[in-house]
Amino acid sequence: MKRGKFIVVEGMEGAGKSSAITVIEELLKQYKIDFINTREPGGTPLAESLRDMVKSAEHEETLTQETELLLMYASRSQLLENRILPALERGQWVIGDRHDLSSRAYQGGGRQFDDKVIQAIADVTLKGFTPDLTLYLDIDPKLGLSRAQARGTLDRIEQEKFDFFTRVHDKYLELVSGDSSIQTVDASQSMAKVHQHIATVIGNYLQENA
Amino acid sequence: MKRGKFIVVEGMEGAGKSSAITVIEELLKQYKIDFINTREPGGTPLAESLRDMVKSAEHEETLTQETELLLMYASRSQLLENRILPALERGQWVIGDRHDLSSRAYQGGGRQFDDKVIQAIADVTLKGFTPDLTLYLDIDPKLGLSRAQARGTLDRIEQEKFDFFTRVHDKYLELVSGDSSIQTVDASQSMAKVHQHIATVIGNYLQENA
Repeated sequence: MKRGKFIVVEGMEGAGKSSAITVIEELLKQYKIDFINTREPGGTPLAESLRDMVKSAEHEETLTQETELLLMYASRSQLLENRILPALERGQWVIGDRHDLSSRAYQGGGRQFDDKVIQAIADVTLKGFTPDLTLYLDIDPKLGLSRAQARGTLDRIEQEKFDFFTRVHDKYLELVSGDSSIQTVDASQSMAKVHQHIATVIGNYLQENA
Repeated sequence: MKRGKFIVVEGMEGAGKSSAITVIEELLKQYKIDFINTREPGGTPLAESLRDMVKSAEHEETLTQETELLLMYASRSQLLENRILPALERGQWVIGDRHDLSSRAYQGGGRQFDDKVIQAIADVTLKGFTPDLTLYLDIDPKLGLSRAQARGTLDRIEQEKFDFFTRVHDKYLELVSGDSSIQTVDASQSMAKVHQHIATVIGNYLQENA
């Protein structure tokens, strides 16, 4: 059985991750590739409980930045061990709505945790595991946030000050530059153009790897 | 307002932590010292939810060693920020049922995580915070476990193989040796003798610090 591939969609609020995932799903179906979907934080019963803790704006107590960081990686550890790795070993592909790059951008850039701290936690949690392909949907934080706000209520992290999102965006740009496993898509274009670009990237990848 | 003191009781299953805490409480009351109690993991609503996750033997999925480690520190971060530090700043003393030494012994010794990994996570979570006094109740793992088993159902961690507890015990001994903020009490003695020893240690500490 050929091992599956792990394709991750990354980007900020309002970048259009959900519709990008739909485009990828359609292409995988055309190639008759069996796949599962994951989202982070979350994706297992325990990880979904951790997601609720991290996303909820209704704690009677402070949720520390350190707790946020640790729960993100605890969630990732559960998802990797219980969902992602078993699926890949069965030959299924996995489409991930966010993965480690998000922690680097949000907790590293946004919360300003030292890269070395995150690296130490990532090393012990992921043991070198990385996605096969990451699609980063790049959007100006102002445009992205206005789209996200139009969509409905914002969660605890989405309620951060604008500076936070600028730092997240800057960090994303820093992280994706020069990483050949990450393909950047300009998500500020029309939806048709964005989808076309995604289809080209995934189509090329499928021709080489399916 | 004079800052409070953080006294921690540490030790393995069946070492008698609960009755040791009662002895300490009585002494603090005699000195008319206002105090609160904490337990780890747990001690805040969010941290208690994390405690349930870590202690429960009923996950439908694997709880990874990495998740266990990260949730212990997430719980500690919440407790420190929301309970321990505010109490100490108000001048209250805090009696802790376990603290960081437990993670060093159980996750470091028992689970065999590298000391450097735990240190990196402890550094970012605790930012140098340490107890003022730790009382380590030393007990042979065999004796301690037989006491714990007599008490009732064992949780997920208490169900580990005997080797695990031998490693925890060895690590405790390694950690307490040469640390002047940790007082070791031989918990295999009669309860009267153990309580007498605790009363002496805490009495001396109160005379110097109350």
